Amino acid sequence: MELLLEDFKMGNIRALARCISLVENESKGFETILTTLQPKKLAPVIGFTGAPGAGKSSLVNALAAYWVKQDKKLAIIAIDPTSPFNFGSLLGDRIRMLEHFNNEQVFIRSMATRGSLGGLCSKIIEVVQVLQCFGFDYIIIETVGVGQSEVEIAGIADTSIVVVVPESGDEVQTLKSGVMEIADIFVVNKSDREGAEMMAINLKKLTHDTLANRQTPVIKSIATENEGLDELVSAIETHSHFAHTNERRAILLADKALLLIQQQKVKHFNRKKMEEEVRTLLDQNHFNLYIYVRSKLL
Amino acid sequence: MELLLEDFKMGNIRALARCISLVENESKGFETILTTLQPKKLAPVIGFTGAPGAGKSSLVNALAAYWVKQDKKLAIIAIDPTSPFNFGSLLGDRIRMLEHFNNEQVFIRSMATRGSLGGLCSKIIEVVQVLQCFGFDYIIIETVGVGQSEVEIAGIADTSIVVVVPESGDEVQTLKSGVMEIADIFVVNKSDREGAEMMAINLKKLTHDTLANRQTPVIKSIATENEGLDELVSAIETHSHFAHTNERRAILLADKALLLIQQQKVKHFNRKKMEEEVRTLLDQNHFNLYIYVRSKLL
Repeated sequence: MELLLEDFKMGNIRALARCISLVENESKGFETILTTLQPKKLAPVIGFTGAPGAGKSSLVNALAAYWVKQDKKLAIIAIDPTSPFNFGSLLGDRIRMLEHFNNEQVFIRSMATRGSLGGLCSKIIEVVQVLQCFGFDYIIIETVGVGQSEVEIAGIADTSIVVVVPESGDEVQTLKSGVMEIADIFVVNKSDREGAEMMAINLKKLTHDTLANRQTPVIKSIATENEGLDELVSAIETHSHFAHTNERRAILLADKALLLIQQQKVKHFNRKKMEEEVRTLLDQNHFNLYIYVRSKLL
Repeated sequence: MELLLEDFKMGNIRALARCISLVENESKGFETILTTLQPKKLAPVIGFTGAPGAGKSSLVNALAAYWVKQDKKLAIIAIDPTSPFNFGSLLGDRIRMLEHFNNEQVFIRSMATRGSLGGLCSKIIEVVQVLQCFGFDYIIIETVGVGQSEVEIAGIADTSIVVVVPESGDEVQTLKSGVMEIADIFVVNKSDREGAEMMAINLKKLTHDTLANRQTPVIKSIATENEGLDELVSAIETHSHFAHTNERRAILLADKALLLIQQQKVKHFNRKKMEEEVRTLLDQNHFNLYIYVRSKLL
C-alpha cells in the first residue's frame, strides 16, 4: 500500500488506476487511500448530461482534443446508468471514441452506477476525490439522462453542462423535471438541424433571471465539426471563474456521509440471510415489512 | 386511529386516501396502519413502464375503462420520477386523463419518487401494501423511463409491461440496459405508425427463449382506439395465472428492510447539523468524507 501511494504521488497512471479500483470495490486499503492522499490542486470538475443521442460523447471528445492541444491533463469519467440487472452496455461507443488519445494526457474511466435500494451506491464522489489528488487540469464527468447519477453530478461538478438537440422529443418534459436548475451552461448540439435557433431562443428566455440580471449561457454547437467549441471553452472558464461554492455540494456530501454511517451501522446484518427469511415468509404469506423490521431492531 | 381503521375496513375511500397520506409522510400512526391492516385478497399488481410519450397513460386509461365495464375495482398509482429539485411536473396530464372515472371504482394516486442518497426513498411498497388491504381487483402502477422507481416496480409488480413505440429513437439502448429482463409483456403502442411490425418482430426474436420454449408476449396496440386491448387483457390474465413468485420481490423487500433498519439506526443524527458542519469544512478546504464519517462513528 505504501508503495502504491508512493507511485501515485510520483504521477504513475497505473497506480492511479489501481487506487480507483480499490476504492470502487471497497477493497482492503481503500480507506487509507481516501484519508491519506491530499489534493494536489483542485481541478474544475465539469459535468455533461443530456439524453442519449444528444452527442455528449462527441462534445466531450472535441473538448478533450482542444485541451490536449493546450498540453492540459484531463480525466474523463463516463457514467453508465445501468439497471441493476445488466451492466455496462452503453459504454462501449464512448470508450472507443476516446481511445485514440494519448494515455498520459487523458485518463478515461468508465463507471456503472446502480440505482438500487440498500446502499449499492456509486463511488463517483470517491473517484473524483482520488482524481483531485493526482493533479489533473480538468475533470470531466459524462452521464446519461435523468437519474441518481445526474443528481450526484449536480453536487460534484463545479460546472454542469446540459446538452440538448433540436429534435429531442421529450425535451420540454426533461427540462421541466429539474434539469433547468442543474444547468450552468446549455449546449444545443447538432445545431445545423431544424429548430436549433428556436430552441436556443426558448432556452435563453427560460433561463433569463431578470431579478439577478443573469443569463445562463446557451451555446449552439456541432460537436463533430468543432463548431461552438471556442464559445463553450470560454463559457466554462467564465463560469468556473465566477463559480461560488456549489450550493448542492454540502447537501450531497452530508447525505453521502449519512449513508456511509448507516452502512457501518448495519454491517453485522447478513443481507443474504435476510433475503432468505423474507422469501420464506413470502412463501407462507406471512410477510409484513414493518413487523419484520421491528423484529430485527429488538 | 381506531376510527380511521374501522372506516378503512368498511371500504371508505376517504379513509383509504387518509391512510396512504399518513404512510407516505410517516405521520403519527403510520406504523399501526402498516402492521395491523390485513390484505383482503391479493390483487394482481400490474406495472407499466416505458419512455415518455410512449402512450402509457392512454393504455392505462383504456385498460381501466375495460375493467370498469366489467365492474372491477381498481387502483392506479402514477409515479413521477422527479428530480429532487422540482416535484410533480409530469403528472398533470395523466391525472386529468383519468379524472372522468367514477371515484368508487377507480382510485387514482400520484406519487413523486426522489432518487437521492440518504434514504429519501419512495413509499411505493408501503402504498401497495395499503391498497392490497382495501380489496381492489387490480392494482396498476405507471412509471416513466429508467431509474429507481422502475427497479422497485419490477420487484413489486406481478406482471411488468414495457410500452414502446415504433419510432422510439433510443429503443435499442433502453432495451439493452435491463428492461429486457424486467418485461413480462411488451406492448408496441401507436402500431399504425411505420416500423411497428418490424419492431414487434425484433422484440419477439430477442425474447424468444429456445431452451425453455418460452416467448414473451409482444402485443401491437393503438391505445387511443382500444386496438390490441383484448389481447393485452388476455396476456395479463395468462401471465398472472402462470406467475410463479416474482424472484425479484424477496431481494427488493430485504433491501427495503435493511434500509428501514439503517434509518432507525441513524435516527439520532441531526442531518441539518451535519450539512452545516460539512459546509464549514468545505469552506475551510478541510473536508474529507471518510475522515468526517470516521469522526461521527467514534
